[in-house]
Amino acid sequence: MKLKVKDMDVATGEVLVAVMNEHDAALFDLHLADRVKLKRGNKEVITVVDFAESENIVPKGSIGLFEEVLDKLSTKDGDIVNMSVTNKPISLTYIKNKMDGKELKYEEVREIINDTVSNMITMVELTYYVAANYMRGMSFRETVALTRAMIDAGKKIKLDAKIVVDKHCIGGVAGNRTTMISVPILTAAGLAMPKTSSRSITSPAGTADTMEIIANVNLSMKEILSTIKKTGGCMVWGGAVDLAPADDTIINIEHPLSIDAEGQLLASIMAKKGSVSATHLLVDIPVGKDAKIESMKEAKHLGRQFEKLGKAIGIKTKVIITDGSQPIGNGIGPALEARDVMWLLKGDKRAPQDLREKSIYVSGLLLEMCGKAKKGRGMQMAEDIIGSCKAYHQFMAIARAQGLKIKDEKDIYIGEHTYNYIAEKSGTVRHISNKDISKVARIAGCPKDKGAGIYLYRHKGDRVEKGDKLFTIYADTKEKLKFAKQTLLEIDGVEIR
Amino acid sequence: MKLKVKDMDVATGEVLVAVMNEHDAALFDLHLADRVKLKRGNKEVITVVDFAESENIVPKGSIGLFEEVLDKLSTKDGDIVNMSVTNKPISLTYIKNKMDGKELKYEEVREIINDTVSNMITMVELTYYVAANYMRGMSFRETVALTRAMIDAGKKIKLDAKIVVDKHCIGGVAGNRTTMISVPILTAAGLAMPKTSSRSITSPAGTADTMEIIANVNLSMKEILSTIKKTGGCMVWGGAVDLAPADDTIINIEHPLSIDAEGQLLASIMAKKGSVSATHLLVDIPVGKDAKIESMKEAKHLGRQFEKLGKAIGIKTKVIITDGSQPIGNGIGPALEARDVMWLLKGDKRAPQDLREKSIYVSGLLLEMCGKAKKGRGMQMAEDIIGSCKAYHQFMAIARAQGLKIKDEKDIYIGEHTYNYIAEKSGTVRHISNKDISKVARIAGCPKDKGAGIYLYRHKGDRVEKGDKLFTIYADTKEKLKFAKQTLLEIDGVEIR
Repeated sequence: MKLKVKDMDVATGEVLVAVMNEHDAALFDLHLADRVKLKRGNKEVITVVDFAESENIVPKGSIGLFEEVLDKLSTKDGDIVNMSVTNKPISLTYIKNKMDGKELKYEEVREIINDTVSNMITMVELTYYVAANYMRGMSFRETVALTRAMIDAGKKIKLDAKIVVDKHCIGGVAGNRTTMISVPILTAAGLAMPKTSSRSITSPAGTADTMEIIANVNLSMKEILSTIKKTGGCMVWGGAVDLAPADDTIINIEHPLSIDAEGQLLASIMAKKGSVSATHLLVDIPVGKDAKIESMKEAKHLGRQFEKLGKAIGIKTKVIITDGSQPIGNGIGPALEARDVMWLLKGDKRAPQDLREKSIYVSGLLLEMCGKAKKGRGMQMAEDIIGSCKAYHQFMAIARAQGLKIKDEKDIYIGEHTYNYIAEKSGTVRHISNKDISKVARIAGCPKDKGAGIYLYRHKGDRVEKGDKLFTIYADTKEKLKFAKQTLLEIDGVEIR
Repeated sequence: MKLKVKDMDVATGEVLVAVMNEHDAALFDLHLADRVKLKRGNKEVITVVDFAESENIVPKGSIGLFEEVLDKLSTKDGDIVNMSVTNKPISLTYIKNKMDGKELKYEEVREIINDTVSNMITMVELTYYVAANYMRGMSFRETVALTRAMIDAGKKIKLDAKIVVDKHCIGGVAGNRTTMISVPILTAAGLAMPKTSSRSITSPAGTADTMEIIANVNLSMKEILSTIKKTGGCMVWGGAVDLAPADDTIINIEHPLSIDAEGQLLASIMAKKGSVSATHLLVDIPVGKDAKIESMKEAKHLGRQFEKLGKAIGIKTKVIITDGSQPIGNGIGPALEARDVMWLLKGDKRAPQDLREKSIYVSGLLLEMCGKAKKGRGMQMAEDIIGSCKAYHQFMAIARAQGLKIKDEKDIYIGEHTYNYIAEKSGTVRHISNKDISKVARIAGCPKDKGAGIYLYRHKGDRVEKGDKLFTIYADTKEKLKFAKQTLLEIDGVEIR
């Protein structure tokens, strides 16, 4: 059937859709979510159909197309396209099979992931897959299959190096900007470490948000490869390049009900490591009250799954379970965390010791795993690399290669509206809640307002006297500072006894 | 936050959505599918948020609203509305609980259904509920709860009559237009029968499509009540009034993967009966090769569920398992089926005997169930009502009350392009596939092309000679007739041995 293109003048950013007038659709016995093939010249595209009841939206004899479909067909308003009915993707059969309790094979999972990436299945259809993974559970083989499928559906950073190092922290701890210390240490030691990081979703800052204070993180694949060639490493935002691209779509679907099947969580993380061709990986699982993982049993179980999955996809994986009972570092929020990192690398006495110790621990283990240091000597080696300012120079080299924004931490803009939170009694700090502190920092403007956040003066175990400053809240506007102060009333972020 | 309304100039027909610029949304830490409350004057509405990345779609400081939200707020382009962040609906917690294997209570199911009807939950969120019902299964108590919730979420047809009759066929048999014979018989006997029917979804014709040939079926609640007052019954399209409205939304979600949890199927049907205040119900389950239900075991199981559910919601329910191994009646398609019905009621010798017998059987049982006939006498009574033309006059009275379109079956338009399908050998008809015949009829144009369809000259068990006409295909256009003829090559609709 020949139909006239109507430009709907909107991008859906999601599944490829063609809107037909109800009357035309009925002629082909089309139902909601059926598929049609559109052809113009030698270009063709398969889309999902949606129906317009009114002639105003899409008249009979026309077909409403969104930006993505117009682009793929190289067509414009008023052109004629040829429409024919086509089968639904075979991936829907696999999703149904999974719902019915069958284990999916690699080829089947790959079909689902490929159709997700090419916007061939609708959000409703993909939701059935996510729901099935959650309710039926995923076998280990399926987790491996999903990891591989996600890697294969995206681009890869390919390096000549025999050893490619990576680290990952499952999150839940405010501050904790170890990656920005480890990458310079390990690359200074001669290892390749092409680190891609995420931006914050629910935390005050992600590594990408923090690194962005000092250098550009929004690099093309070509720029990433050039940075690595110059310096052995990089610290970039993974979202800018198409690494394991199905992941974001799945996360969007999981969000409304906070669903996260364990197999999906594992696959999502490990696929990103596979995409950068990692050979050696350290996974950090912080455990503690108000962290993402609160029980040691859960942490150990998850740790075993990471190691098993790493083995299956050929990445040597070591898991450490660390203290997640309080924030690590003093600054929380992109700018404040970036300043901590700079102080630490420069050996400034204002640098947070806890972050220094953890970074040395993580880097030391990786140096040993990769054979750069003998067993038991890695931490000393890492310490030396920081102490000799090699790590600092290496950091600046990477930042320059990515595009330097700020030369000195003094130039980092910190939110100008501040509020000091004062101890109401004397005693010892018993607990600083990661959840509560993160919430206040976000309300103050993190991560979009980069200068916003919290600066902690005390950590767990510290003695405080009544009237001491416990932390300062920074915000870009008076209004947000007010909101953040109000939030303080609802929480008990710092417990003193 | 005050935002300027931008009219998006489209109706979504689905969930209530407000589109914010990404930058504004970040200020409130909003994520995809979070909820906001919009207020203007004394009107307020809660919507799901979506994000626009570009200033072209929704600029900073503006909020993009679709028709439904504009209407609810009585607002227009350029107005100022007040936006505040609000919690996600509690129904999402219940959906999550169901996914985790918990049994839901009536109040919880009702919350989910109410939020579905008021477009407060997204398609993705509702998909999780449908998926959970399918994968976790529904307890009997949940099925009852869902039925009640669906009834309570919609309008009801309330009558003074102590006995209100209804019938339902689960479908899968082409033709089989018993309802249009039973309603006149039972109302002629003095019973109240406010029959609402569906339009075809996957069959060549629904009762509403067929009745529409003769009378208007698109009645308002007021017109329905007036028709019942005049005649004791009606035969209308249920979709025109808001009876159990959640059902359509759920069906749309089930369609892409052909999911249908048994509990949902039962609830969906019984809610419609509850909505017309039925007290006595006959459910017809046709069984046979190529019918919807192919095994007697499955039919019996389903029958027991109907009776149990009927009892639980106070509807006296009787189930009959009938022969579904071939089409019933000769005409298939709205016009051809309407003509069969008229012939039958008028006592014309061209009327299909199988349809007459089945209608008498169904009506007889209902007359007995409702105490209008003694046990064993119902069928004779039904036969007499048809034979005396009382049923015909009653039918015409109902049709006139609804708005008559055609006085005589001679005026019914039948598709002008025809093709006769001829027996290639002599023998006995062993099988006529409902699925195959329905497929050909739909390709010929049913149900949208009302004159399209198939007219059968032979039924199962009939003797045929080589060269006999087995059936005629009718279509409105040459092209569709051609498509239908092509389809004949792929099927073996009539088996002769």
